[in-house]
Amino acid sequence: MTATPEVAVSAPVHSLEFDALVVLLEQIFLRHGTSADVARTLALNCAGAERDGAHSHGVFRIPGYVSTLKSGWVDGQAVPVVEDVASGFVRVDAGNGFAQPALAAARSLLVEKARSAGIAVLAIRNSHHFAALWPDVEPFAYEGLVALSVVNSMTCVVPHGADRPLFGTNPIAFAAPRADGEPIVFDLATSAIAHGDVQIAARKGERLPQGMGVNSLGQPTQDPKAILEGGALLPFGGHKGSALSMMVELLAAALTGGNFSFEFDWSNHPGARTPWTGQLLIVIDPSKAAGQSFAERSQELVRQMHGVGLKRLPGDRRHSQRARSAEEGIRLDNETLEHLRGLAGL
Amino acid sequence: MTATPEVAVSAPVHSLEFDALVVLLEQIFLRHGTSADVARTLALNCAGAERDGAHSHGVFRIPGYVSTLKSGWVDGQAVPVVEDVASGFVRVDAGNGFAQPALAAARSLLVEKARSAGIAVLAIRNSHHFAALWPDVEPFAYEGLVALSVVNSMTCVVPHGADRPLFGTNPIAFAAPRADGEPIVFDLATSAIAHGDVQIAARKGERLPQGMGVNSLGQPTQDPKAILEGGALLPFGGHKGSALSMMVELLAAALTGGNFSFEFDWSNHPGARTPWTGQLLIVIDPSKAAGQSFAERSQELVRQMHGVGLKRLPGDRRHSQRARSAEEGIRLDNETLEHLRGLAGL
Repeated sequence: MTATPEVAVSAPVHSLEFDALVVLLEQIFLRHGTSADVARTLALNCAGAERDGAHSHGVFRIPGYVSTLKSGWVDGQAVPVVEDVASGFVRVDAGNGFAQPALAAARSLLVEKARSAGIAVLAIRNSHHFAALWPDVEPFAYEGLVALSVVNSMTCVVPHGADRPLFGTNPIAFAAPRADGEPIVFDLATSAIAHGDVQIAARKGERLPQGMGVNSLGQPTQDPKAILEGGALLPFGGHKGSALSMMVELLAAALTGGNFSFEFDWSNHPGARTPWTGQLLIVIDPSKAAGQSFAERSQELVRQMHGVGLKRLPGDRRHSQRARSAEEGIRLDNETLEHLRGLAGL
Repeated sequence: MTATPEVAVSAPVHSLEFDALVVLLEQIFLRHGTSADVARTLALNCAGAERDGAHSHGVFRIPGYVSTLKSGWVDGQAVPVVEDVASGFVRVDAGNGFAQPALAAARSLLVEKARSAGIAVLAIRNSHHFAALWPDVEPFAYEGLVALSVVNSMTCVVPHGADRPLFGTNPIAFAAPRADGEPIVFDLATSAIAHGDVQIAARKGERLPQGMGVNSLGQPTQDPKAILEGGALLPFGGHKGSALSMMVELLAAALTGGNFSFEFDWSNHPGARTPWTGQLLIVIDPSKAAGQSFAERSQELVRQMHGVGLKRLPGDRRHSQRARSAEEGIRLDNETLEHLRGLAGL
């Protein structure tokens, strides 16, 4: 990461409206060669993560997007090609572009199929995913649908019982509607820690908890730099997390026609940061289920979870930060904002 | 468990053919009030687990099945009602019977829909699942399909961040075909340990690893008896496993019309052991995917996993034990076999 201009972490001094941040990020993407559609989609995604306090996938990612676009590794102008394969199966060839515009292009067909067939799958291939995964599933829950998504990334996780890395951080995200509140949403890396969080810890000079990764010799380490410099991550939860990470490779790559995490070679594209893989989404229409409405039932589960002493649901922190950002704006420190403005040519 | 006659663990002395074990177990089920269909389905399932070395879901479960049937908690004669809801959605009301006959009744329709729509979901409700989950998904992989299933059980797991148990052990099972070998199959409890394994450890007088459960005061314990007697399990992998367990409740109960793990009351049925909940299966036809055949791709992933030093794939141990049992028969110690014969009235 040393060659990449980076966004520093310091005290917040500016407060931006969400729309203003979107416009700023849009300009950065446009200035680095994306189409207007791609710029808009990625700016909304990235600003949304920053707004919701998901800093490892917020403006922190912008330098990586920029260096990747500069490197020629990803096609910022790609136009996704949507294929209607069967009554419950949609494919998209993202054309070596980003995954989010591919999802956007197929989204209405996917929702239509899910509502008609009861379930539908979207298989995106030839795509780059450099963002959080929850923004891909959460909107379905706001439409009353249940959504599950997996995406594979680049080799950085040692399978449980193996010696060397093979899997990506391979997150799983899930979203479900509920009657009296924000959707239930989670997004979990199947690695013991997300790669972005290792980068943030390295930048802050913090040590990691035990069990997160190994150094270049395959020895356990709590030093984030040792993990980033030739080391690797471990899966979460031992053999179980490792099995889930393997499942993500199979669903996001083998089932889409995309690359496994170990298959792409970006060595000729210095500055490239985005994994060139695939993504799978499954969307289910719970109105097809028997019994009481799904949203009432999920509300009951939440009520019971609070009843056994759970303070915070998955997604709660993001939703409360979102509300706070709506009132107070999105806080960025001066250095970050100046850097973003510079990248936008302002 | 003290009131239940139990199968003891001692040296193997008998060797049974698979078919002979199936017939013996069938007789036990029939003698305790199930229909012939239900007896056959459960006997095949249970004998298959024993054959594959999955002892915690093999004949070890028979006393629990018997005491449950005796208690009147489950309907061993139930005839599942299959509902064709949409081009990708099948529902089954198991009629307070077992989940496996419900799956068997809906299976051909589910496969037909998956092959036609590309993906299909089976939502089983009003069902009892007391077996391993991998036998439900593995057969789909032998037919070239990818299958995912979840089932919720009974309250025994403390959600991460909560004080008291709410979730079940809530397993996730996955199966995928591969070109040059047995399917890739895993079945993982979202609890840190499966309930059956705690029971086996308690019987053997063994201590558990750290982080598996808490005692009746909510304090961490390594004593399996303290977990079984008023204590509870923890989810695997902290907040991530807990989120997945929550997802299982939503998919297996809220999305099927089944009970959450905390909703059924079996206190009037002493001897009842089977959770009365729901089960969800998702089946995908990978021939709809772009690119090289899925089975070739999954084979490549396996090759690479071995290449980074992985000795054993998920499912490997079961498949090799299956081959061994085919040659040597299924070994049961004398006490176990006599007990089973007694239950069968032989």
